[in-house]
Amino acid sequence: MSAPAPSLHLRPPSALLTDLYQLTMMQGYFREGVHTQEATFDLYYRRNPYRGGYAVWAGLEVALDYLDTVRFAPAELDYLRGLGLFDEPFLTALAQWRFSAEVTAFPEGSVVFPNEPLLTVRGPLWEAQLVETALLNILNFQTLVATKAARCLSAAQGSAHGGAIVEFGTRRAQGPDGALGAARAAAVGGAAGTSNVQAAALYGLRPVGTHAHAWVESFPSELDAFRAYARLYPDATTLLLDTFDTLESGLPNALTVARELRAQGHELRGVRLDSGDLAYLSARVRAALDEAGFEKVQIMASNDLSEFVIESVIREGGRIDIYGVGTQLATGGGEGGGALGGVYKLVALAGEDRMKLTGDPRKTSVPGHKRVWRATDAGGRLVLDVIAAHGEPQPQAGERVSDPANPLRNSRLPAGLTWSEPRKVVMTGGQRRVPAEPLAVIQARAAADLARLPEGTLRLLNPHVYRVSLTRTLQEHRDALMGQLRERHGL
Amino acid sequence: MSAPAPSLHLRPPSALLTDLYQLTMMQGYFREGVHTQEATFDLYYRRNPYRGGYAVWAGLEVALDYLDTVRFAPAELDYLRGLGLFDEPFLTALAQWRFSAEVTAFPEGSVVFPNEPLLTVRGPLWEAQLVETALLNILNFQTLVATKAARCLSAAQGSAHGGAIVEFGTRRAQGPDGALGAARAAAVGGAAGTSNVQAAALYGLRPVGTHAHAWVESFPSELDAFRAYARLYPDATTLLLDTFDTLESGLPNALTVARELRAQGHELRGVRLDSGDLAYLSARVRAALDEAGFEKVQIMASNDLSEFVIESVIREGGRIDIYGVGTQLATGGGEGGGALGGVYKLVALAGEDRMKLTGDPRKTSVPGHKRVWRATDAGGRLVLDVIAAHGEPQPQAGERVSDPANPLRNSRLPAGLTWSEPRKVVMTGGQRRVPAEPLAVIQARAAADLARLPEGTLRLLNPHVYRVSLTRTLQEHRDALMGQLRERHGL
Repeated sequence: MSAPAPSLHLRPPSALLTDLYQLTMMQGYFREGVHTQEATFDLYYRRNPYRGGYAVWAGLEVALDYLDTVRFAPAELDYLRGLGLFDEPFLTALAQWRFSAEVTAFPEGSVVFPNEPLLTVRGPLWEAQLVETALLNILNFQTLVATKAARCLSAAQGSAHGGAIVEFGTRRAQGPDGALGAARAAAVGGAAGTSNVQAAALYGLRPVGTHAHAWVESFPSELDAFRAYARLYPDATTLLLDTFDTLESGLPNALTVARELRAQGHELRGVRLDSGDLAYLSARVRAALDEAGFEKVQIMASNDLSEFVIESVIREGGRIDIYGVGTQLATGGGEGGGALGGVYKLVALAGEDRMKLTGDPRKTSVPGHKRVWRATDAGGRLVLDVIAAHGEPQPQAGERVSDPANPLRNSRLPAGLTWSEPRKVVMTGGQRRVPAEPLAVIQARAAADLARLPEGTLRLLNPHVYRVSLTRTLQEHRDALMGQLRERHGL
Repeated sequence: MSAPAPSLHLRPPSALLTDLYQLTMMQGYFREGVHTQEATFDLYYRRNPYRGGYAVWAGLEVALDYLDTVRFAPAELDYLRGLGLFDEPFLTALAQWRFSAEVTAFPEGSVVFPNEPLLTVRGPLWEAQLVETALLNILNFQTLVATKAARCLSAAQGSAHGGAIVEFGTRRAQGPDGALGAARAAAVGGAAGTSNVQAAALYGLRPVGTHAHAWVESFPSELDAFRAYARLYPDATTLLLDTFDTLESGLPNALTVARELRAQGHELRGVRLDSGDLAYLSARVRAALDEAGFEKVQIMASNDLSEFVIESVIREGGRIDIYGVGTQLATGGGEGGGALGGVYKLVALAGEDRMKLTGDPRKTSVPGHKRVWRATDAGGRLVLDVIAAHGEPQPQAGERVSDPANPLRNSRLPAGLTWSEPRKVVMTGGQRRVPAEPLAVIQARAAADLARLPEGTLRLLNPHVYRVSLTRTLQEHRDALMGQLRERHGL
């Protein structure tokens, strides 16, 4: 038995991982005696990341671990006491504080769309308020990166020979846990492995890697370096070709080593390209490998890849098998990325529906406790989603529904759809009601959901817009509530 | 005495926070018997983030903590054993492994520029190799965010009445530790506080906050909500004005509460704008507050701020005192941001200088153990930096120096400069040789260095390009080594 290694058991976030105002508001609710009023908060986002057609919902398991365990430790309470903002009755109450609410959410790995409540918290106001910051922090980032991975993978799969992606971005990720979280989320979105050893250990991912330029530079010659690596890992060697020159030096040396390995009963696993014109170089390298009888040696590529680079390399005849995506995957970067703008809004309190007015109709929240219905066609393909008030029955063919951001855009629901409710109650009384899901299950769900998307929704730019609508009942309810609020505030 | 709260003592990264290839290469060096050869690695970046004129070097203290403590725990070795890639002699050696090298670096908070070795590791090859990933992970992210903070602050200080920035981005940051790291780095770059309570506790920062829309929505009216908050925090209330309408509802209600507070002997601290035209609204709100005799009530603004938004709000007559910068600060986002492309390159091994060839001269590394000299003018203002071979004397007036990326761009060093060596040896034998620096000291160094930058270097776009040159000796040495390498590889 070995001692437990803390690195292999990440702690969920602290109760102090929150914005100060959550704590000052909590004390306010407590002082006003409204802290245990039942509140409903919806977590959702308004625009797909990367200007794409969908998001891959990720981070739920991490979020549930947090909700399950979040407590105020004595030293944390001492810190709060020292701020001079909080009184003893409140601090005493915080010492007993637990998350006891109900949580309803899309299963992790589901494809999701703008304006849908992805996760709903129903429970005592002060509990639901505190956890906002950590929930958004976890779920925004995980969903951002899982979506990026799905986009990179769908680009990589665009070639006749297929293609895989692996996550290579630890050195450019946003801190140590940023790298770990990114590796996890990338796996949800379809990455086949990660270079990050700790992430592989923590999440049961496949650790992958080749060697660096420094390995080659540390030997008298490139061929010496390649031979030494192959001697060490005769069945797991991927050689980096571009330390001096990919085609003039790296490729012939790799072919020499491939022949030597074969003579000893082993096979070179792969080669890696890390600079230059990846389409041209990979085609040349593929041809040379094939000609020399090494059809199974895989070509891996790295060097500032993104879904758009992958797509263009394939379009121009590149022959890459594995894309090592670094910076843009680990940070969810690129146009329309960098952060997911998920929000968490109060939609009901003490039995009354609530909403925030705003000058921008795209930012108007949808009040009340709601359900999300998802329609599939006879082939099992996703067709559209409908957001309904919680009490409404299943949507019916012919029913009129409207765009959440613009009621003028409305239409009738077609016939022949199969309806389901993808969201599940995953926590009641602050306890998990469904077993924790292994990452492999989540990854498989994402792959299955992505495969069920309507034509064009996967397109990287200007995709088909998947329709998410409000029922007429919900739309009218929102209009009425908005009218009341404007009246009450003299607007 | 209270129990220690783990949230208040972040662990440095695990030894497994590394790329798999570092470990397979380590085993290779070990097997080849070259693992203890003395290697020199330089950490540097090639382009300033955000297309700006400088970077604020951050994360050194975090990195040194990591180097000081990094060990392989038994369970981590068990994990590695299970991968089937590593043999027992190597795993036994890893169990004893410690970082024992020398580290030279710019003091944290220094302003730094492309191509300068910001940190140099000299020591046993396998040690220097392992730590590459974690060093880059920590230092790239911290430097990225500290630089963003400095840019936001320099924009905020562009108005006649000055301006401060605070970090508000936890909900969009890249995971829990991404948020904590961002808050720390933002402080290095000049943020006056953070909304993140755990970050404030960990790093001794000022926790700041107001209240959310949900607070207002949870009361029968906005005025009720404002009054309740002011009752609770009579000397620390900042009221959010835009839940219903900033000028029609939020502002008059805030004025009512400001008068009520004053009647009770208190003063409203501030108001916050979170939507709409911040320039127009802040000017209107400032005028109304001043007219009512509340000149000291501060105006805070939030809502997708960046250095460019801040600059334009000021240019258009905005009157904001405190900018709460969220997403873009916590993620180092924006054009030319999202990640800092710092690299870590082998420059010497076993007494011989090394370099990587490449088709792109901007990516050619500078071989050998080096020094960085910084020149200031009579007024103490920074003028230029010179990278020299380690054995060279202090640069002299009239000496010819050249651009690292293009030797054709060369010039003579002017007279009248004062030279210093900003980099210090901070670790020898794997032990810290200088005491850990408090964040306040680091923040003050950054502020002082930023104030010493030449005219135009702070400009957000198309700034003055601060000159970093190579000595002629170093330039010629690099040329000669490049020639030898090309020869040896028949290129």
